[in-house]
Order: sequence, then C-alpha cells, then structure tokens
Amino acid sequence: MIIDGLQYCNWSEAIFRQMRAAGITAVHATICYHETLRETIGEIERWNRRFERHSDLIFHGRTADDVRRADAEGRTAIFYGFQNCSPIEDDIGLVEIWHALGVRFMQLSYNNQSLLASGCYEPEDRGITRMGREVIKEMNRVGLVIDMSHSGERSTREAIDLSARPIAITHANPHAWHPVARNKSDDMLRALAMSGGMLGFSLYTHHLKGGVDCGLADFCAMAARAAELMGVDHIGIGSDLTQDQPDSVVEWMRSGRWTKASGSASFPPPPPWFKDNSGFANLQAGLRAAGFSAEDCGKILGGNWLRFFAESFGSR
Amino acid sequence: MIIDGLQYCNWSEAIFRQMRAAGITAVHATICYHETLRETIGEIERWNRRFERHSDLIFHGRTADDVRRADAEGRTAIFYGFQNCSPIEDDIGLVEIWHALGVRFMQLSYNNQSLLASGCYEPEDRGITRMGREVIKEMNRVGLVIDMSHSGERSTREAIDLSARPIAITHANPHAWHPVARNKSDDMLRALAMSGGMLGFSLYTHHLKGGVDCGLADFCAMAARAAELMGVDHIGIGSDLTQDQPDSVVEWMRSGRWTKASGSASFPPPPPWFKDNSGFANLQAGLRAAGFSAEDCGKILGGNWLRFFAESFGSR
Repeated sequence: MIIDGLQYCNWSEAIFRQMRAAGITAVHATICYHETLRETIGEIERWNRRFERHSDLIFHGRTADDVRRADAEGRTAIFYGFQNCSPIEDDIGLVEIWHALGVRFMQLSYNNQSLLASGCYEPEDRGITRMGREVIKEMNRVGLVIDMSHSGERSTREAIDLSARPIAITHANPHAWHPVARNKSDDMLRALAMSGGMLGFSLYTHHLKGGVDCGLADFCAMAARAAELMGVDHIGIGSDLTQDQPDSVVEWMRSGRWTKASGSASFPPPPPWFKDNSGFANLQAGLRAAGFSAEDCGKILGGNWLRFFAESFGSR
Repeated sequence: MIIDGLQYCNWSEAIFRQMRAAGITAVHATICYHETLRETIGEIERWNRRFERHSDLIFHGRTADDVRRADAEGRTAIFYGFQNCSPIEDDIGLVEIWHALGVRFMQLSYNNQSLLASGCYEPEDRGITRMGREVIKEMNRVGLVIDMSHSGERSTREAIDLSARPIAITHANPHAWHPVARNKSDDMLRALAMSGGMLGFSLYTHHLKGGVDCGLADFCAMAARAAELMGVDHIGIGSDLTQDQPDSVVEWMRSGRWTKASGSASFPPPPPWFKDNSGFANLQAGLRAAGFSAEDCGKILGGNWLRFFAESFGSR
C-alpha cells in the first residue's frame, strides 16, 4: 500500500495509468493554491469529470476506509487538499462546507501572510492570527487536517501547540539537511512528531540537497536521520510531484494575483530517480538499502499516512 | 413516521421543538428561491450552525436511512431543496457539487422562465430547454430529485417524460379542486403517478379551495379524490409551511431580483387547523374521517415519501 502525501500533476489518463502501474493506493492531490471559492468548486467539478471518465482507475477518497477499498479494488483514491486558505475567504463557516465536499487538508498560509498565519517567505512571521485560532478549532472539530508545509517557523510551532489534533507538514524536508526556507528545523520536526503529527518527505528538486543531482542514497540517508529524530511512525512521503505541468503553473503558484511582477519561473527538472510515480519503486529499494526494515518501509511509504488519515478525517 | 415534503419556516429552536412534539420525522426544507451559489452556501452554513446548536432536535438528512435514524433517535432529519435552479448558474457541473453538499430536490423553474424550464406564471410555457435536458440527465445520474411545483404545464409534462427517474411535485393541489396556476391538472397528476412520481398536498392558503376558510374535511375529501386519480402510493404532504416568516420574505420569493416593482405582498393567514406542525395531528384525524385506512394514512403522512426518498437520492 503506497500513499503519497502530496501531488499536483497535470492530471491525465496517462498519469492515472502510471499510478496504477506503480501501485499507488492513495494520493493527497492539491486542488487550490490561490483560487477563490468559486474557482476551487470548478476544480472539484473537473475532478468529478475525471472520476466519471476514469472510474476504473481512480475515485474520490474521503476516509481511511476508502484507502483500504482502493487497495482491494486496484484503484487509486484521490484526497483533496488546499495549499492555502483562500477558499474559506473570511468565513469560518466555509471550513465545514469544504469538509462536506471532501477536502481533507488545508494549509493555513502559502508562502505569504494569510488571514490565518504567516508564510515561510514573509520577512517576519507574525504567528497564528485571531481568526487563525478560531479556524484551527473548527478544523479540529470537523476533521480537516492543518498542513503547515509553506508556513513560517513561528506560525507552524503555534499551530502545533494550538491544534488539539495532530497536524501535518505534507511536503518538506529537514532544514539541517538542506537549509532552504521551505525545509523545517529539527526542533520543529521533533515537536511535530511529539504531538503525533506527520512529515511527508518532498522530492521537489528545490527541497533536495544538491538539487537535481541529489542521489537516492543521500535522500534515504536523510530519511534515516529523520526517523532517528522523529520516530519511524511520523514520517512518510509527500512527493510534491508536478508531472507534466507547464511553467505557467509555477508562475501561478508563486505569484497568484498578489503581485504584478511576472517572473520567468520554471519548474526545475526532477531527480532522475523520481520523475513520476514509478519512482516509488526506487524509494522502496533506497530505503531498504539505507537500513530500513521491510516493515518500516511499509510504514514510510503508506502505513503511517493511513493511520494518520484514520485518526484525522472524522468529526469530533 | 411523519414526513413533510416542503417547509420554509423562519427556523428557530421553538419550531424545532414543535416539530419534535408533533412527531415530525423528516422535512424537506427550502434553502433557496433566487439565491446565487455563494448565497446558498451561506444558507447551508446557517443550517450547519443550527445542527451544531440543536443536535438534540435536528440533523442533516441525506438518505432514506437517515429518516429511519431520525425515527429511532427521536430527532427530525432536515433534507435540503432548491425552489429554483439559480445555484447551478449556467454550469451543469454544479449539480453534482450540490448533491455532495446534501441537496436532494431542485425545482427547474420558479414561477418565471429559467435556463431550464418555464415557470407557471409565464404567459407562454416554452418547455424544457436544451440545457434543461442535459441537467435532467445529470440530476437523474447523481440522485437529485426534479421538483416541478412552480413550473408550467408543458414544462412539467416534458420533465416527467424526459426524466428517467420519478419526479416530484412537492407542494401543490389538484387544479380541478381549486383552479389557480400553481395547482396541477388531473391529466398531469395521472401522468405523474404513472411515472412513479409523488404529489405533496399543499396547505398554503392560496392553494386551498376557499382560502383560509377551507375546511379540514374539504381538504381531506380532495385528498381522497386525488387518491382515486393517482393511487394512494403517490400522494403525500408538502405543507409549504412558512411559519414565523416576515412579509419581506414573500416579497423576496415573488420578486427576487428579477423586477424593480416592489409590491405589498404579505403572507396569507394559514387555515386554523394547520398553523404549525401540530396540524399534522388534525390531518391524521381528517384523513381517517375521509375514509382512509390507518395504513393509507401512514403512507400519505410519511410512508410514501420514505419510499420515494429511498428510490431517489442515490446515484445511478
């Protein structure tokens, strides 16, 4: 059973077939970066069309049981997540609306300041806002997971402390291994694990030591050190795979509508051992070679996320 | 087990307690007349607050099993419906979105022409539109019931013919009994029943012969004649109860945003034997006095709607 804690591919039948060939049981798929409520509903509509057209390959996942069903039926369950809080506007009531529509993860901020928290590229991290505290309580109540992948250090620490339920950093790596703003300090990762939370290791080139030249062995040695730091039950994969996306998409991710500056952003080439979902077989081999037991490999590649899904998606 | 096929009250704890006292198991509650997508989501948010605050009295119903659960738990299940198609805009993908949010009935038009069908007050009924045909197929697929209560004669006949699943006229009476535009011809009611559909008898004063002076016995004799025409399995109650609503609401229902003319519309006084949910006990007595067996009374007051819910709310 393989679960990927984050992907944002340019979805197609070809990719869904690759997922099946690679034995991917479930994927947390991003459906929003900066989109409004209406635009995000449009994205769910596009997923509904995909589910209708490719029902032999994929279906909409809402619960941990759906992961088990996907495994039994040889399909991939798609779980929705937001990388930002734009779809809840300034309206806490929308948290429950989105959960009812099947959204299971929401980042409190994406790179910038949001109404809820600071992003990791803000020069100052102002922590969780007044509304952020209310929204964390509401997300806890309905079973919408707090994801702090793109948030700043202070905001993330406060979210871990304020949340009554474990949170996730679905796609990032240890800062000590590769010190960029998107990667997380050892202190933070320890606090995350202590609270029952999950880290998904990112395969996005900018999050890798050495970038595109990062070796599989180096990546898996990083995972082994993180397992020592956090415990093997609190780590998984959040590949951040953006397969087949045009560069216009990375421009949208970075700049949204918040700046008029238009850069020349482009997606970096992926490491040759993780260009698509077939890379999970390489990860499996690499993790075993790095000393993980078969059982621990199973936890990292899917079992831990499954446990986390089971604990996290129901209402309280 | 009592099921009301339509209400639009000014909801309050007092009304929910009256529902429980009257033994109301389930209600189809209108959540939209002319509202946009965003406004209708706001209405669902208001219901979510009510469900949270009054969880001992009410909960959101989505399936026929939820009616049985309401009965077992001594609560009232609230089923959402639209009296118009404004919340789907011009976007067929929104049909499935609303079904996912728990909407179970949608009228194709409300008094006026819509993108889908003609309303009963249009001087000319143009029938089901091109988009209307597509939306009927989509409603059939996801399990959203077509309600033609406020549609014109031709549009309603075409909807019955085009729909692959039984449709509903949730709140209206036979035109032969009280000839107003909102009541339905015997031909139509026969066609509705032949296709497996349901008629909910309305208690709204304007739909009653003699208006506020309509007697319970006359109403129940009308029901008996409808049972002869349609069969006792295809009739129920759709009271159209608008308890505690201010007159500004009837102005919104009638004029929405489609006309600048603002009238002096007001709600008519209800018949004294159906002023609130306690009126169901009067209906039960009246139906027995009109010659219905206890079994047939059970069908009319709830059993038929329950069967219809079970057949209608699932996807195909």
